[in-house]
Amino acid sequence: MSLRVAVAGCTGYAGGEVLRLLLGHPDVEIGALTAGSSAGSTLGEHQRHLTPLADRRIEPTEVDTLRGHDVVFLALPHGTSGAVAAQLDPGTLVVDCGADFRLEDPLAWEKFYGSPHAGTWPYGLPELPGQREVLAATKRIAVPGCYPTGATLALLPALTAGLIDGHDVVVVSASGTSGAGKSLKPHLLGSEVMGSVSAYGVGGVHRHTPEILQNMARLGATHPALSFTPLLVPMPRGILSTVTAPITGVSAEEAYAAYAEAYADEPFVRVLPPNTWPTTASIVGSNVVHVNVTVDEAAGRLVAVSAIDNLTKGTAGGAIQSMNLACGLPETTGLPMIGVAP
Amino acid sequence: MSLRVAVAGCTGYAGGEVLRLLLGHPDVEIGALTAGSSAGSTLGEHQRHLTPLADRRIEPTEVDTLRGHDVVFLALPHGTSGAVAAQLDPGTLVVDCGADFRLEDPLAWEKFYGSPHAGTWPYGLPELPGQREVLAATKRIAVPGCYPTGATLALLPALTAGLIDGHDVVVVSASGTSGAGKSLKPHLLGSEVMGSVSAYGVGGVHRHTPEILQNMARLGATHPALSFTPLLVPMPRGILSTVTAPITGVSAEEAYAAYAEAYADEPFVRVLPPNTWPTTASIVGSNVVHVNVTVDEAAGRLVAVSAIDNLTKGTAGGAIQSMNLACGLPETTGLPMIGVAP
Amino acid sequence: MSLRVAVAGCTGYAGGEVLRLLLGHPDVEIGALTAGSSAGSTLGEHQRHLTPLADRRIEPTEVDTLRGHDVVFLALPHGTSGAVAAQLDPGTLVVDCGADFRLEDPLAWEKFYGSPHAGTWPYGLPELPGQREVLAATKRIAVPGCYPTGATLALLPALTAGLIDGHDVVVVSASGTSGAGKSLKPHLLGSEVMGSVSAYGVGGVHRHTPEILQNMARLGATHPALSFTPLLVPMPRGILSTVTAPITGVSAEEAYAAYAEAYADEPFVRVLPPNTWPTTASIVGSNVVHVNVTVDEAAGRLVAVSAIDNLTKGTAGGAIQSMNLACGLPETTGLPMIGVAP
Amino acid sequence: MSLRVAVAGCTGYAGGEVLRLLLGHPDVEIGALTAGSSAGSTLGEHQRHLTPLADRRIEPTEVDTLRGHDVVFLALPHGTSGAVAAQLDPGTLVVDCGADFRLEDPLAWEKFYGSPHAGTWPYGLPELPGQREVLAATKRIAVPGCYPTGATLALLPALTAGLIDGHDVVVVSASGTSGAGKSLKPHLLGSEVMGSVSAYGVGGVHRHTPEILQNMARLGATHPALSFTPLLVPMPRGILSTVTAPITGVSAEEAYAAYAEAYADEPFVRVLPPNTWPTTASIVGSNVVHVNVTVDEAAGRLVAVSAIDNLTKGTAGGAIQSMNLACGLPETTGLPMIGVAP
Repeated sequence: MSLRVAVAGCTGYAGGEVLRLLLGHPDVEIGALTAGSSAGSTLGEHQRHLTPLADRRIEPTEVDTLRGHDVVFLALPHGTSGAVAAQLDPGTLVVDCGADFRLEDPLAWEKFYGSPHAGTWPYGLPELPGQREVLAATKRIAVPGCYPTGATLALLPALTAGLIDGHDVVVVSASGTSGAGKSLKPHLLGSEVMGSVSAYGVGGVHRHTPEILQNMARLGATHPALSFTPLLVPMPRGILSTVTAPITGVSAEEAYAAYAEAYADEPFVRVLPPNTWPTTASIVGSNVVHVNVTVDEAAGRLVAVSAIDNLTKGTAGGAIQSMNLACGLPETTGLPMIGVAP
Repeated sequence: MSLRVAVAGCTGYAGGEVLRLLLGHPDVEIGALTAGSSAGSTLGEHQRHLTPLADRRIEPTEVDTLRGHDVVFLALPHGTSGAVAAQLDPGTLVVDCGADFRLEDPLAWEKFYGSPHAGTWPYGLPELPGQREVLAATKRIAVPGCYPTGATLALLPALTAGLIDGHDVVVVSASGTSGAGKSLKPHLLGSEVMGSVSAYGVGGVHRHTPEILQNMARLGATHPALSFTPLLVPMPRGILSTVTAPITGVSAEEAYAAYAEAYADEPFVRVLPPNTWPTTASIVGSNVVHVNVTVDEAAGRLVAVSAIDNLTKGTAGGAIQSMNLACGLPETTGLPMIGVAP
Repeated sequence: MSLRVAVAGCTGYAGGEVLRLLLGHPDVEIGALTAGSSAGSTLGEHQRHLTPLADRRIEPTEVDTLRGHDVVFLALPHGTSGAVAAQLDPGTLVVDCGADFRLEDPLAWEKFYGSPHAGTWPYGLPELPGQREVLAATKRIAVPGCYPTGATLALLPALTAGLIDGHDVVVVSASGTSGAGKSLKPHLLGSEVMGSVSAYGVGGVHRHTPEILQNMARLGATHPALSFTPLLVPMPRGILSTVTAPITGVSAEEAYAAYAEAYADEPFVRVLPPNTWPTTASIVGSNVVHVNVTVDEAAGRLVAVSAIDNLTKGTAGGAIQSMNLACGLPETTGLPMIGVAP
Repeated sequence: MSLRVAVAGCTGYAGGEVLRLLLGHPDVEIGALTAGSSAGSTLGEHQRHLTPLADRRIEPTEVDTLRGHDVVFLALPHGTSGAVAAQLDPGTLVVDCGADFRLEDPLAWEKFYGSPHAGTWPYGLPELPGQREVLAATKRIAVPGCYPTGATLALLPALTAGLIDGHDVVVVSASGTSGAGKSLKPHLLGSEVMGSVSAYGVGGVHRHTPEILQNMARLGATHPALSFTPLLVPMPRGILSTVTAPITGVSAEEAYAAYAEAYADEPFVRVLPPNTWPTTASIVGSNVVHVNVTVDEAAGRLVAVSAIDNLTKGTAGGAIQSMNLACGLPETTGLPMIGVAP
């Protein structure tokens, strides 16, 4: 099979990562590459690491350019995917790396994003129960946010196995700077970022909060409540999520066994050996998730930690994993299983 | 006044930072510098940044060498301070940067450190209520651990003002690598550390856990319970602590006001403007603490964040702040109020 | 003595470093803080590390604001200092951290900066022979560029002792990112900078090239010729300059002796022990320069290496060192001799 | 074809990178993994990023274990490859990632490595003229050093086109820390490395010096002379080499054209557009080399800059590129053409 694939928004970090992975995908032919203000320049001016595509000319993000592809990846600013998607053929697989179609609750969307809700597409997290079947039958995929991917996969077995009920979950996620995109903001300058850790979006105001809550509910949390704090740490890629939740009557060994069982057949999730805790360097550049769990009996809390690459499993890799399912390909096709370390 | 000061354990990070600060202290004359296996070498071989002391010869850590000083700083491996301190004159001010004398509960000490309890010395955190008076009257000071300093100062106003009762506190602290010392371990190599965040000591087993709990109790927590997770982040210095705790009936504005009031007269603690969150780069190299707080009403939790330099306020700066009190000097003498940024 | 000092351009990295050092200067009272588009905001919004000045209001960079000070530091964009300086009282000490008044040759200025030459002020590098006397008698000081400071101090003894004649000097200087300032350019984003080294201004086009050549000529180079390549490395501060030049008939020991002698009385320059090579971490935050030298006989070249903090000795520290001389203060007043490491 | 491949020394950085790339090679089956003191442990304990091999047991580095493979990679400490290789079947392809068989001149070997010379094997740099034919016919390959790979590829077109004669080449190479290996040395700790650039092996004493000279001679330098200075920079991977050499009568355009022509058909070398200078982030994780060149007429020097990943093209990627040639496979098989950025 050879899928002809376009990427709208090819100059940003998400678009660049989609292209990095597509270049290694055996069933993909790369079609149109589009952008907004950068149309007309070459891809090499924006994505120097994509050497084989360095001389490719970037076209404007217009429907005419995007038509005629089997798959269109949208890596556009939040709020702009809907208008583009509406004009694409219903038979074209559209994979939106943005937030527009992730949330089911229009009120949550409006509260956190401040614009009208565009709708809800099937959620591209194949590890959710039953989701592979949904993704296999869709032409529209909403790629999860990077923080929700990491947090949800750290929580999933605890919720599906009923170890916790999700009523007081605390998540602190430390992210590399590429999660903030290529926007030119003073606090993202290298001089500011290096040697510094900072908190932002504190107090439940980060836009990924309702998305994590939505996933918790889907996994069986009866009264989901979440305190979510993101941290910016001095590295380009990676998210380490620390998740804690009240637990009683479950030992560390039982929790570990539940995680091991839940993820036994997941191709991209590895539960590390007991007492070995995730480190983002081990998964950078790959679509792999490292997870571990324990129970702090004195505190009365389960503690789980996950590591993902925010651009790979957290964005572009998750997107291609879902694309594979929607196209009837083996789920792991073209996706790196090995991190680039040290 | 001129205090003659010795530093035992001058080749490590804590000892180096003590010396960096003492070199800027107007009332201090630097006396003996001692170490274990490095005795006989020059300080410049171990602490290149201490240019004015580069040619100073290091002496062995022996009581004869340490005698005859007004102040002796101990920056020794855990478990070794007691034997040295026992031989020093009762009139000498001994400031122990290690853990040996921090905990009041011998059982907690034995559980977390695995050795016999050496005793308890006055705790060198002047911001604790009533502690300045204690420190002014002592010749023995136990310098707090770096994580407990950051976490306690993030929690203090919430506990003293009764906003929270401390029964389900969750702390996630992201630390630079100097907190792990100069020990030669593979996971501390630059190639491993850069570009990576990792969790360690997960599940309530980190040695600073009982120390934070002890501080919470002292601040009025009636049933203290704590989930503490430390993270290692790719920077040399700094700790950012994210602290959450159940809260009801208190608004974000009320919490902020309580923090602002509690710290109004603290020389080293600054509550940042509302919605401005701490970043470690802003305090690196200084004895300053940046703090902020809010309430996440949907989650039912107070969220506070603090930033400290683990080597300055978190170790050597806090130590000298306490020394100043014990010596009758103005508390801020010789301590940097300004960070080195960017 | 108490000098009233204004800083024009207080929101950038150079201005911030001037203020960091002035806050530790015993003979200085900080007066007006000015900026362009940021006038009206507080300093804390731009320079979070300057905690004691966080609430100071920034005024517009206008002559009325700058009048009435003993010293005015200009940390303005290149090409804009001249107009401001022209309106200041001749009796006010004006210290320009920009490039405008560094070059003596108007043609070199125009070639490299592309604007009319503003003139030449006494050059603020006290280590140049005879320069202390010049600086002691001036009210106008041109602070050297950061690369020229590092390169010149690596070359100085070789030229003044006649070890080399300067006809084929090759300098490669690796700089931290703060040297590029706070300008919002994509290649300065943390995500781009971390994990990457790059060359720029290659082939003799960097603006600091004629300034290094000017210093070489002043130090006695008869036919100065220079290949200068700057590198951007992933750290906020520091410059490591590697300097090589043809040499014959001089041994490594003789070269070392010449460097040791030349710098024996320099308060801020330390020649490291033989075979110990500079590392920028050892001098970050201080006004200290670490230097070493050897001779590669097989290659027929002297090799010298220097490390400076580009913001301290390379900009603001050098500026205050010159200010001290111009104000009749001891040269080292208020300048840190100790780096912040690790 | 399926080649059965063993890796001796699988716990270090070179061995880990060989395995990372072999896992993506379509014609390779991974056989024995061996080590010295780590034998008996699992690979996951040492190489966490190699998730698919995490549970593989490491065997001791003994000849019996290494027999029965088509290819054996040696990633052993310098000086130890010879004894192992001598016992392997002559028909087995042995690829030595160490230095033992790189140098042709026994005196140079003994001077720089201090041990008896083991011999000389075909040099695994396919870009050298005529070298592909040599590699296609050998069962023994000496993988080039990382610095020599970067420096040689920056110099190659200038020498083969006769633009320079190699009599006064100056190379300054900035390397990430993985080039120093996993050895536990204080100056390689993360706390020391981050935020710091340092020079080492200054003055012509670095072991890669004679190897670069050997390559220069092979490329036609009549009187090769080299000043080589390596720098350690705060990033895990990558080498940026700045190379300058005297040149006369050649314009920047002519030099660029010579480089473009020389590398037009090289699959892994890309000459960047004029005035675009290499950055290591663009090639990290790939086997790609980015190069550019100009002429500084005022200095009378050609300046060329190259970027490689020291572990990929500089070690394991170059090794597999040569293996491909020696095994009759397309040269690019299994080697990543795309960097992992940002």
